[in-house]
Amino acid sequence: MSGLFITVEGPDGAGKSTLVAALNQRLSEAITVPLVTTREPGGSDIAEKIRAVIIDPKNKKMDDRTEALLFAASRRQHIIETIQPALERGEVILCDRFVDSSIAYQGAGRKLGVDKVATLNQFATENLTPDLTLYLDVEAQVGLNRIGHKNSKRKKDRLEMEKVSFHNRVRDAYKTLLKDNPERIQYIDAAQASESVLADAWEIVQTKLQKHQLLK
Amino acid sequence: MSGLFITVEGPDGAGKSTLVAALNQRLSEAITVPLVTTREPGGSDIAEKIRAVIIDPKNKKMDDRTEALLFAASRRQHIIETIQPALERGEVILCDRFVDSSIAYQGAGRKLGVDKVATLNQFATENLTPDLTLYLDVEAQVGLNRIGHKNSKRKKDRLEMEKVSFHNRVRDAYKTLLKDNPERIQYIDAAQASESVLADAWEIVQTKLQKHQLLK
Repeated sequence: MSGLFITVEGPDGAGKSTLVAALNQRLSEAITVPLVTTREPGGSDIAEKIRAVIIDPKNKKMDDRTEALLFAASRRQHIIETIQPALERGEVILCDRFVDSSIAYQGAGRKLGVDKVATLNQFATENLTPDLTLYLDVEAQVGLNRIGHKNSKRKKDRLEMEKVSFHNRVRDAYKTLLKDNPERIQYIDAAQASESVLADAWEIVQTKLQKHQLLK
Repeated sequence: MSGLFITVEGPDGAGKSTLVAALNQRLSEAITVPLVTTREPGGSDIAEKIRAVIIDPKNKKMDDRTEALLFAASRRQHIIETIQPALERGEVILCDRFVDSSIAYQGAGRKLGVDKVATLNQFATENLTPDLTLYLDVEAQVGLNRIGHKNSKRKKDRLEMEKVSFHNRVRDAYKTLLKDNPERIQYIDAAQASESVLADAWEIVQTKLQKHQLLK
């Protein structure tokens, strides 16, 4: 028995956290197996320690390649300690960000090269790929405004402080990934109200669960 | 003006720390430019934070690929913050371990594959290569005994706790690197007394310094 690996992707401010929380609730009620909801980077003890180094705003001198290597290291540990064991138990994994994020943010956003970052991640994942990826699409400026206004209490982390051109490159890379992986990656218009985003996402997820006979 | 980048390599217990300390003293008296003595992994603020995660004996669940990625991340930051700036200032850098260690320990010792670990490190170093590498050769068992007896007060870290077969693979990989890089890597018999090791090393280093016109 092998489980189902679902990831949620998209630019900052696309509404990933809101969607993951809502899906977490719906999934836990609807499926016949346990659900593991987790996030990138982090999701395990060692991975969280690495995450702490990555997101600390004090680490201003962090080089882009260091950052990409740390994301890959954190991801590897996350796979070994959390994702792989849950898949082997036949469970459903819902994960906030995965390899696509590194390709979009480090490969395109930071201009390290999409191919190089993909190779790095092949080393980290040994080609473990999600069964389904929900891509929340939103214009870079719209996403950034949401972060600025709605969550004004939340401190912006180092990545979110990058400028708009960076976030435009990120979105373009996501669109290329979407075009190159039409089966795995499903588009969702994240400019909609969060209820509509959830409705679209749930329809896609339900269909997948049905195919895998995981619905109650 | 470009400086001179010297690394010291070898299996555990070969006497690297002793040699680096002795070379540090001789070099600082003998050269016309500043000397930077540093070590791998670590050597900069962020790199030290990553080092702490790598060597903590509590992190027993650390996967081999995670470890390799963390070493590469730490190395990258070390290059950017410490090695590259010193080279650009025309200084001499003496570094305890570099890419060869990852190839020997992670590639061969941990069996991740010498080529894959080399590729990973090309991403991290952008092909920055030492001008001179001193390879301290000692049989795995001899090296391990030294660690066990001489430094019995020193706690063994996670890597040193590996068994002899691991350390034999490490030594074999070093020998292959030596054969493949006869110009860069210079052999030193580390079974000798430490004074003889230093004498051999100093002769090699002096010749190199002379060529680069860095001797007083």
